[in-house]
Parts: sequence; structure tokens; C-alpha cells
Amino acid sequence: MILDRGSSVPLHQQVAEYITSHITNGEWVTGSRLPSQRKLADQLHVNRSTVTAAFEELTAQGLIEGKRGGGTRVVNNTWGLMAKRKPADWGAYVEAGQFKPNLPMIRTINEAEFIPDIIRLGTGELSPDLIPSEKLIHLFTKSSFKPRSLGYSEPKGDLQLREQISYYLKKNGINAEPSSILVVSGALQALQLISIGLLDRGSTVLLEKPSYLYSIHVFQSSGMRFCGLPMDSEGFMPDQLSEFKKEVDSAIVYTIPSFHNPTGTVMSLSRRKELLFACEQERMPLIEDDVYRDLWIETPPPPALKSIDHSGNVLYIGSMSKTLSPGLRIGWIVGAKPVIDRLADIKMQSDYGSSSLSQWVAAECLRTEIYEEHSSYVRNRLKIRRDHLLSLLTNYLKDLAEWHKPSGGFYIWLKLIPTIDPRVLFERALQQGILLNPGVLYDRNARQYLRLSYAYASFKEMEQAILVLRNLVLELGW
Amino acid sequence: MILDRGSSVPLHQQVAEYITSHITNGEWVTGSRLPSQRKLADQLHVNRSTVTAAFEELTAQGLIEGKRGGGTRVVNNTWGLMAKRKPADWGAYVEAGQFKPNLPMIRTINEAEFIPDIIRLGTGELSPDLIPSEKLIHLFTKSSFKPRSLGYSEPKGDLQLREQISYYLKKNGINAEPSSILVVSGALQALQLISIGLLDRGSTVLLEKPSYLYSIHVFQSSGMRFCGLPMDSEGFMPDQLSEFKKEVDSAIVYTIPSFHNPTGTVMSLSRRKELLFACEQERMPLIEDDVYRDLWIETPPPPALKSIDHSGNVLYIGSMSKTLSPGLRIGWIVGAKPVIDRLADIKMQSDYGSSSLSQWVAAECLRTEIYEEHSSYVRNRLKIRRDHLLSLLTNYLKDLAEWHKPSGGFYIWLKLIPTIDPRVLFERALQQGILLNPGVLYDRNARQYLRLSYAYASFKEMEQAILVLRNLVLELGW
Repeated sequence: MILDRGSSVPLHQQVAEYITSHITNGEWVTGSRLPSQRKLADQLHVNRSTVTAAFEELTAQGLIEGKRGGGTRVVNNTWGLMAKRKPADWGAYVEAGQFKPNLPMIRTINEAEFIPDIIRLGTGELSPDLIPSEKLIHLFTKSSFKPRSLGYSEPKGDLQLREQISYYLKKNGINAEPSSILVVSGALQALQLISIGLLDRGSTVLLEKPSYLYSIHVFQSSGMRFCGLPMDSEGFMPDQLSEFKKEVDSAIVYTIPSFHNPTGTVMSLSRRKELLFACEQERMPLIEDDVYRDLWIETPPPPALKSIDHSGNVLYIGSMSKTLSPGLRIGWIVGAKPVIDRLADIKMQSDYGSSSLSQWVAAECLRTEIYEEHSSYVRNRLKIRRDHLLSLLTNYLKDLAEWHKPSGGFYIWLKLIPTIDPRVLFERALQQGILLNPGVLYDRNARQYLRLSYAYASFKEMEQAILVLRNLVLELGW
Repeated sequence: MILDRGSSVPLHQQVAEYITSHITNGEWVTGSRLPSQRKLADQLHVNRSTVTAAFEELTAQGLIEGKRGGGTRVVNNTWGLMAKRKPADWGAYVEAGQFKPNLPMIRTINEAEFIPDIIRLGTGELSPDLIPSEKLIHLFTKSSFKPRSLGYSEPKGDLQLREQISYYLKKNGINAEPSSILVVSGALQALQLISIGLLDRGSTVLLEKPSYLYSIHVFQSSGMRFCGLPMDSEGFMPDQLSEFKKEVDSAIVYTIPSFHNPTGTVMSLSRRKELLFACEQERMPLIEDDVYRDLWIETPPPPALKSIDHSGNVLYIGSMSKTLSPGLRIGWIVGAKPVIDRLADIKMQSDYGSSSLSQWVAAECLRTEIYEEHSSYVRNRLKIRRDHLLSLLTNYLKDLAEWHKPSGGFYIWLKLIPTIDPRVLFERALQQGILLNPGVLYDRNARQYLRLSYAYASFKEMEQAILVLRNLVLELGW
């Protein structure tokens, strides 16, 4: 935009419009500093007094604000002005949580994942070469069945898919009718639906500490509090549940019993039974997040809590994202029918169901055993990948870190021996093209930890990243 | 389950367990009435006193509750018990709205849509024969490009899709960079993200009355209030906006300017300009829901508000659900970049993005002009369908109802002349296999109205349904 000196609109107003247009089109975001009056005057070839007049007008409108010595900042645009009156809802929820949210770091990670050539050493995602994209796409040509329609699907999801999930669950010892299964767009949406559909604002989630759940804000955003309980090598320690239960008004348990994210821990069978018993005693519902179940390396994990639950306490979450394809966005919730009915109703009110295409592909994968064959393939590959990362750790970080060998899932929970500010380590690594998942995302006290993943980076990338990590630890540590 | 008379577990406890298992597995839902004690005693071959003892135990546990003269009801299961302490959050939100929610009727509709052979006379969905399912599926074999990966997509959605949407929007006079576009799983998710991401609890949504928005609870569930403003034949009447604005703390406007749902009204260009001006004056953000834009019959609607908005006030929602395929679950939000950034962050926290398969199909449809060709085909079909339904109305309901001829979209807003209880009409029609969308779903005062759709039912079904409707109106009216 160039100023129009022949216009009847006064120049200072044109300058004000110029600034406003940069704010409203999003180039100058709320909180950012405007160029100085002098610089703007030079740039637009006007007197500084013209710019001053424009600034005054915009200040009066509440769009910008001058700070002594701090220059002039964009305070708000119209959407922002509205949110300013009271803090925006979502933000208030996030801030209301018990811990300081690491939202900015997660956002950085979400965006950095798409930087070309970035090495993702902590990503909770299969490497693209482990996703059978071609096989899935060929389903459309090969399969004798075709999606019947690309209309909206039933409230609980496509019946054929739910039947296949029911059959798949049976093989895992879980008896669930299709009417007790809700198809969701991945496990995260399952948590979102549970948090808004079943839980009170102000209720407490008892969970493992550390936990993946700390890195997302779905429960806190719905006004829930977290109470992290310690783990040992067998997982969650349920003996403290009753104690905590007494102190809070209403509580649920959230657990990842098999190949826990981020620690890799597998909950022992006896611990599973204790946990179920404790929940029954306390009449406390339990969410079992079991998305890594099929990714065992040496032996399958103990039975799912859901398969040995006879009280109906367990709400069970599964997904295809970790074994087959996250891009399908297909997961499921299994529970008592009235609970599933309620969640289905909320799902309908949120997005009218998941993609029909994805649901059809998921059903075909289960029906044709692509799912089973591919899980087995992924297990083999993960074994090799895990062993490779472990040998790199032994070679390069033996004296600088400690870790356990995971028996499945994606992750190694690495404890650095030297003390390093996790944010500094994260940023310095990022500068060198390595994307880390610091432990503080999963437990704000886990400042010495990193969640490493052997599922995503290539062998060469892993080695490069571990070398960079070694050098950073040597440079920044102690 | 059969009782084990040889067991050491007392019989009354076995009966209690039998009842509990039916409650927890969901067969006997909260609120439902248990079989009488006598009936259960007969069924299980035990004395009635045994059943009485079991009932007493379960009553003490809070699972069932006897009402004098009303039998015994299931009060709660464990999940329910928890929610009972305080009312469940979601329920509280829905109840907190200004109007009595019609949730049960919507749920009935959602479920009844999947009853075989039901005639859907009000459905907001294209008939399956208007969805180019085969063409979309053939894309996977025909297209020279293939989905690059079925991994997670970028926070704002697949870049190729956003580029195609940007290009498509340009043809509609809307300039939007891909970075100002967020891909969502349909327009409903767009509203969900806006409601939780940008609006305060307690803020007010100014909207047309009637409006589709009254039939979903996405805003009320986030604690927003509705304030419906009257419409005339040119749509929304913005002259009252400033008045309302004064009375409320913070407010936004929601409008469906083109082929309004449910009335079919098209907002005139002058009205669009007035509305934009009023919003600018009041610094009030505006949500433009434009999902029916491409479904004009005689002439295209006036330009989108977004295309003539120079203040950045408008947040624009589009979708492929009404023109191509609802099963894809692909829509978009267009707005100032910081707003889109915020919404993208919340989308990532809700479901990690939309299905990669669906996004790829959507991008290919825009790129190859399948979308454009199909929209044109649908327009032609809708013209014929509309004219057919109009002639049926003239033939069968001329003296019983009033209506306007819509110039696009899916709907005819039918006003019945006789006074009929809408719930009775709905239920009686459903008994005869006809699914209606009563006007009260869109405005609780619109008791005399029905939303008819010419998009879904076949010609034969339309005639059958209109005949049933005629007979019901004659029977129930006056």
C-alpha cells in the first residue's frame, strides 16, 4: 500500500489505515512491536508528525499502546479487543491448571516437525517408511468391498468398522458389542470427549507422573486438576489411591499401563489387579489408554485392564495411529453402553463423526488382516530400531546419561547426569536441526530427562542427533 | 448368567450381582425401570424375599432407587455415581443456555436417520446419489499425484489442500494466503474451535432467528448466550445490532447470509454492507457461515461478507460437506493470521488434525475441477428436486401451509396453517416412517414450522412423505 497524496483522506489517517491493515491481516500480531515513528516516517515518505498523529488515533482506538522506553506495541485487533475484556476462555482454562503449561514449547515442536531435514528424536510417530501408505491406498482398487457411501456416518461410527473393532478386541480378551464402541478421530479426541462429556469442572485426574497427559491440555482446559502419583518399575502405585481419593471431591484415574508414554514402563499383572481393585473399592472410574499395546518387542504385555474388569469401571481407549497410520485419525473408546451413548452424542455435536474414507480403510485393514500383518512388521522394525538407539546411547552417552531398555512402544526415558536447563538444551539442539522432547513436557520436575523415540528418525539421523546431544551435554552440563 | 446354587456366595448377593452386571454392561441404563421383584423372582427361580434383599443392597450402594408406586429405577452406575455428586459439566453447560435444549429430539433424529427405509424429509445432507463416491475413490487410482504420507499433517492442515482452498476462495473474491486458512473436520468443528478458542464464557452470540445454530449446542456448551434477531426477506436486520451491543458485555455476530439454514433466505448486498458497517462501528467480530454458497439455483448469491470486509472482522467458514461429500469431513476457517494460529493450536490439542486421506481427496477435487463440475451437477439436480417438492406442496398442502420458493441451498421453511403440537407431529410422522425436522429445533417459537429439504429424499419418497404430512395435518390440526 502506497499513500495517496491526491486523496481527500488526510495523510495521517492513511498512515493509520496502513498500520491497521497490517494488524488486521495478521502481519503485525498482538504483542509485537511496531517500527519506530522515525522509521515509519522514512519508509512512507511523510513527516514524523504525521506518523505521530496516526499513532495517537490508533492508541485512542485501543489498537496500539506506547510504553515508556519500550516503543509502541500492537495491543489488539478487533477479535483481540473482544477477548481483552476478560481473558479468553481457553487461555483461562489452560492457566487455571496446577502446573505452568508448556504450551509454547509444544507449539514450537508442532511447527518444527515440518521444517525440512529436521531430525525428530522424540516424536511420538512412526517413521514414514513404517506407514503402509501404498497398501492403504491400494485398498481402494483391490478390495472387493467399497465404501457404501461418503455420507455422514452413524453417531457411534460406521457399523462395519465397529464390528471389526469388536472382533479385534475379542482377540485381546475384551468383550465389547459394537454398540459399546465409539469410533473417534484418534486417542486425543477420545480424551477430549471424556473430559467435556463425563467429568466435572474441578474434578481431579489421578495419573502417573510423568505422563503424556501433562503435555496436552485437554483435561486442564476443561477445568480439571491433575494429581501425579509416582511410578516404580511395575508402573502406577495404587496403594496411594485411597489416600488421594479422600482429599478430593471427585476423581478419576488415567493410566497408560502398556509401554507407558514417556517412560516405556509396563504395568505388571499383579499391579493391574491391585489398581482395578482399588478403583472398585473407591468407586473410581478409570481411563485405560492402551494405544501402544500391539507394539511389544519381546513378549506381549499383560492383559488389558479392561479385559479383567468386571465392574464396568474401565473406559478403554485404542487407536490405529501408533501401529498403522496417524493420518487416518481413527481410534476408539470402549465402555458401558450409556457412557458410550453420551460420548457419541457429544461427538456428533463436535464434528458429526470421523471421515468415512478413513473409517472404511480402517475396517478393511482389520478385516483383511493388513492390520495384523503390519503390526507384526512394525514390531520387528521397532526391535531393530530400539537396539540401534540403545547401542548409540552406549557408545556416546554412557557416562553422561542413564536409561532402561524398553520392551515395547516408542520411547526411551533418558536421564542426563549433568544438570542442564532443559529449555536451553532444547533451543540449542533445535538450532542444530535436532528436535528434542524434553522431560519437562511430561513432568515439570523431570528437568534432567528427555523422551527419546526410536520410531521416527533414520539410523543415520539417530547417530547424528545423539552426537549433537553428546556435544551439547558436554558443553552445557555442570 | 444363571445363579449358582452350590456356590458359597449367598443367593441374594448373586441376584445383586446379576442386576449390577446388567447395569454396568449398559443393558439397564440410568433412569430405566427394573423388572418388578415378582418378575425377577420368577425369572431367576428364587423367592421374592431373595430379590428384596438384593434390591436393598443395591439401594444402599446407590445404584437403584425405589419410588412409591413407580417401581424401582436404575439411579446410576459407577461413572454415573461420580457425575451425580455434581451434575456433569456438559449437561450443566447445555442447561445453562437461554433456551430449553431440544437435545432429545436431535438425538432421535441422529439415530432415526439410520433406520432402514426411513424417509428423511428435512435432512441437511445430499442424497447418496448426489455424492460422487466412485469418482472420489477412483482418484486413488487415476490421479498422478498420490498422498505423500499418511502421517500427521501440519497444524493448519495439508499445505497442498490449503493452497487449493486459497485458489478456490480467490475465485469467490476472497483473498486468503494458505497461512490464513485452517483445515477443519467440517463446519461444525469450525464453530466448536471458535467457541472454545476465541469467545468468553458469558459472551453473547447475536444471530438470526431462526437459525441452524439453535439446533446444535456447541456455543451454549461453552457457556455462551444466544440473542436471536429477527429476519426479513433480505435477511438479518443489522439496525438493531448497536442496541443489543449496548446491553451485553461482549458479543459476536453469527450469520448464514447465503441460502440461510433453515429459511433459505439470501441476504441482499446492501444488507451485507450494512451488517459489515455495523460490525465495524461496534468493533464486533462476525462469523460468516457460507457452506451453501455454491448451491445457487438461478443466480449466484451476492459476494461473501468476507470478500468485501476490509477490517478483518470476518471469520469465514466453508465446507465440502454440502456440495461434494459430508463423509470427507473437510471444511475450512479463514481469518486474520493470529486468529487462525490460535485456532490451529486448539485443533492440534483436540484431534491432531483431520484425516490425511480426506485432505488429499479434497485437494485433488479442487485441483482437478471435480469439485467445480460436481457443484454444477448438484445445482442442476437441486433445481429439479426443488421444483418437484414445490409442486408436491402446491398439490397437497396448498390450503394447509405457506412457503417461499428458495433460490438455492437445501431447504423450504414450511409454515403450517393449523396449530399442531410439533412433538406430536414429529412422533406421529416417525411412526409412519417419515423423519421431520420441526421448526422448534431452530427457534423454539417456530412451533408452526417445518424445515423441509429437497436434497435427500427421492421423488417417490417426497410424495409419500408429503401425503403422510397432509393426512397428519388434517388429523391433528385445529
